[in-house]
Amino acid sequence: MVNALRIGIVGLGTVGSSVVRILKEKQDLLTKQCGRPIEVVAVSARDRTRERGIDLQHIEWVDDPLVLAASDNIDVFVELIGGEEGIARFCVEEALKHGHHVVTANKALLARHGVALAKIAEKKGVLLNFEAAVAGGIPVIKAMRESLSGNNVSRVYGILNGTCNYILTRMLAEGISFEECLKEAQKLGYAEADPTFDIEGFDTAHKLALLTSLAFGCVISVDDIYVEGISNISLADIHAADELGYRIKLLGVAVKTDTGIEQRVHPTMVPTSSVIAQVQGVTNAVSIQTDLLGELLLSGPGAGGNATASAVIGDIADIAKSHPGFQHGPVFGTPAQALAPYKRARMRAHAGGYFIRLTVDDKIGVFATVAKRMAENSISLESIVQRPLAENIQPNTKNIVLVTHETTESSVRKALSSIMEDGHLIDKPQMIRIERPN
Amino acid sequence: MVNALRIGIVGLGTVGSSVVRILKEKQDLLTKQCGRPIEVVAVSARDRTRERGIDLQHIEWVDDPLVLAASDNIDVFVELIGGEEGIARFCVEEALKHGHHVVTANKALLARHGVALAKIAEKKGVLLNFEAAVAGGIPVIKAMRESLSGNNVSRVYGILNGTCNYILTRMLAEGISFEECLKEAQKLGYAEADPTFDIEGFDTAHKLALLTSLAFGCVISVDDIYVEGISNISLADIHAADELGYRIKLLGVAVKTDTGIEQRVHPTMVPTSSVIAQVQGVTNAVSIQTDLLGELLLSGPGAGGNATASAVIGDIADIAKSHPGFQHGPVFGTPAQALAPYKRARMRAHAGGYFIRLTVDDKIGVFATVAKRMAENSISLESIVQRPLAENIQPNTKNIVLVTHETTESSVRKALSSIMEDGHLIDKPQMIRIERPN
Repeated sequence: MVNALRIGIVGLGTVGSSVVRILKEKQDLLTKQCGRPIEVVAVSARDRTRERGIDLQHIEWVDDPLVLAASDNIDVFVELIGGEEGIARFCVEEALKHGHHVVTANKALLARHGVALAKIAEKKGVLLNFEAAVAGGIPVIKAMRESLSGNNVSRVYGILNGTCNYILTRMLAEGISFEECLKEAQKLGYAEADPTFDIEGFDTAHKLALLTSLAFGCVISVDDIYVEGISNISLADIHAADELGYRIKLLGVAVKTDTGIEQRVHPTMVPTSSVIAQVQGVTNAVSIQTDLLGELLLSGPGAGGNATASAVIGDIADIAKSHPGFQHGPVFGTPAQALAPYKRARMRAHAGGYFIRLTVDDKIGVFATVAKRMAENSISLESIVQRPLAENIQPNTKNIVLVTHETTESSVRKALSSIMEDGHLIDKPQMIRIERPN
Repeated sequence: MVNALRIGIVGLGTVGSSVVRILKEKQDLLTKQCGRPIEVVAVSARDRTRERGIDLQHIEWVDDPLVLAASDNIDVFVELIGGEEGIARFCVEEALKHGHHVVTANKALLARHGVALAKIAEKKGVLLNFEAAVAGGIPVIKAMRESLSGNNVSRVYGILNGTCNYILTRMLAEGISFEECLKEAQKLGYAEADPTFDIEGFDTAHKLALLTSLAFGCVISVDDIYVEGISNISLADIHAADELGYRIKLLGVAVKTDTGIEQRVHPTMVPTSSVIAQVQGVTNAVSIQTDLLGELLLSGPGAGGNATASAVIGDIADIAKSHPGFQHGPVFGTPAQALAPYKRARMRAHAGGYFIRLTVDDKIGVFATVAKRMAENSISLESIVQRPLAENIQPNTKNIVLVTHETTESSVRKALSSIMEDGHLIDKPQMIRIERPN
């Protein structure tokens, strides 16, 4: 039997502790599957005394993560500290330079420094595996990096944040407001005390940036992502969408267009009959469209200690099964040196269908004015629903809901700005982009 | 740059021709992704003169597939002939014994001889990759074999046959009979002239047998699968299911129970709100439930030249990216020598919910008799729908539709047999098992 694969882990939060526990509990299964034992030989975390429910007795405790990163006693360095700068970055760099394989769940680090780190890994001939960084337990990185070799991807989109999907699912199912759902999610531990990072789409953007690089063989560019969160989605939107046969999901979307790559994170209407519309609660899902496959969709748990640990362990097992010193495929599917420059397509050129909800004075001629503004901007309409709002909400007001055929972001913005100038709106207009499966 | 990876392909039908064409068209992309060129150096097929729309000019033609399997001029042998015995089996064996990596899409061969072939491959230290054998372009083999390392699978189920799913989808959408849908599917090339193998569930069974081995680390046992096809599904079933909030799908299901492994292929009711219920037309889907992940679902194209070729090319790319002479994980996740014996759980012990549709005389007391038989067998009912059939279909008859809470196959069979003896049935009773997502 080959020697044990020696693991060093830094960061012993929920995921780190789960990895240590599962590697122990499942050691027989993993040894059988990998042909060699996997052994956690050293760990490092901030607080040595904290109770984590795991047995660290026969594992070396290293105070300094950087020392562990450079240790000759490990084969694989597992980084579960998180954060795009500071200690996480330093020790991943150190471990790679030292010739260790690295496994990380750190989306922020990779979204910012992934290409630079991949260059080091590829130069050193070691692996930098990051399945856990995107969509938790769903093996989307492996699917894109390995299974889709030879495919040209045209679009990738997904529900990449469980907190947002939980809130949007509950709003529809229970008819309760965004604020109430958020509070509930916080109580259940699905949302952080400061939920901004999830709710406003930044977490989704980090994950999308990695998928975009894998999909299109380009460098990672998280700063080029258009980001809009879900905090302004109202029950009125949710219900109007439902009535028209749509669900609202926070999607990260990356599309290859004639003018470049469009990366965007925003509330999105998807047809209720689509598979992704049925992805409920904290579950994540990713859809990948390619020339050879049409659409491939993966859904599963996007977070949680066990699910994320499963992805980390899958990454470790891949290393354990490999012959020491072998070469493997590039970190982002294409060698880091050969990743294409990122060419951004402007949001204003985005073409697609739009859902528009206007709260207007209940007066004669208002609808005609709205219709005229749409026509002026060459926007053709698929559905129109006009309905008085309940008296107890806003007396003498109407909700006009429009679904457009394919048009451009710039046309919709122009039309909405004219409508606002017309002065009939009582509230900010709502505009939600529509995404259709292939 | 490393030398080109030399490929020999036997079988140049739709998939084989697509592989040759795509490897040529995508050679730059694949070379970048794999770090070395992939080159088809030799092919073999029955008819050299057939027009396939591919350029074979610079590729050696070998008349005898066995000669190609043993050729020293190739690194990877790709078998796309099909069939569980005969030439496909001989040449895969020959290629493995000769130390070649093998890529195959042949589910029948693997369902029958997979373990024996895996033993040869593992002894020789070569890969036997078969992503294309199950669910076409969906990377379910890789997910189960690699990503789920350390997971204990409790159940795997899926829509594994596009023909059946196409027919069931059309029956509901268009309200047309099984026979008409089948004719339509044949016209569109989604069903064979002799559709028995697809329609009666045997194709699904072959694929399920492979998933079961991967899921539970046991030997493959295709003969232990309970198989029931879709040819007796009527529009009445489809509509009753719809009314009760279910869709009917032909599923292959493998479950670990206390008494052994249950492998079954049959029409199945799944809740309309589940993700798998929304998998339409020829699309396939596989759901895997594990202790660490909860549920993972993958959906995508289950057949077609390009999609299947994509899976074959993914398998080839994995070999191309590997260092020559490296060791890799076992063919079925667990080393072939260590696969557990198969222990079959009997269908009569199967526990679950059931949909039962009875066509009965429209007479007083019939329903009471039916209810009594259910009670006698300790079957509790979740829903009951009783409705007269349209006069022009069967005068003076009623449809009784029952959905049971969890019970056993054996109780349901006993109750139905008593009901048949009671003599009120006008038609064979219909019984469809219910499968719920986690």
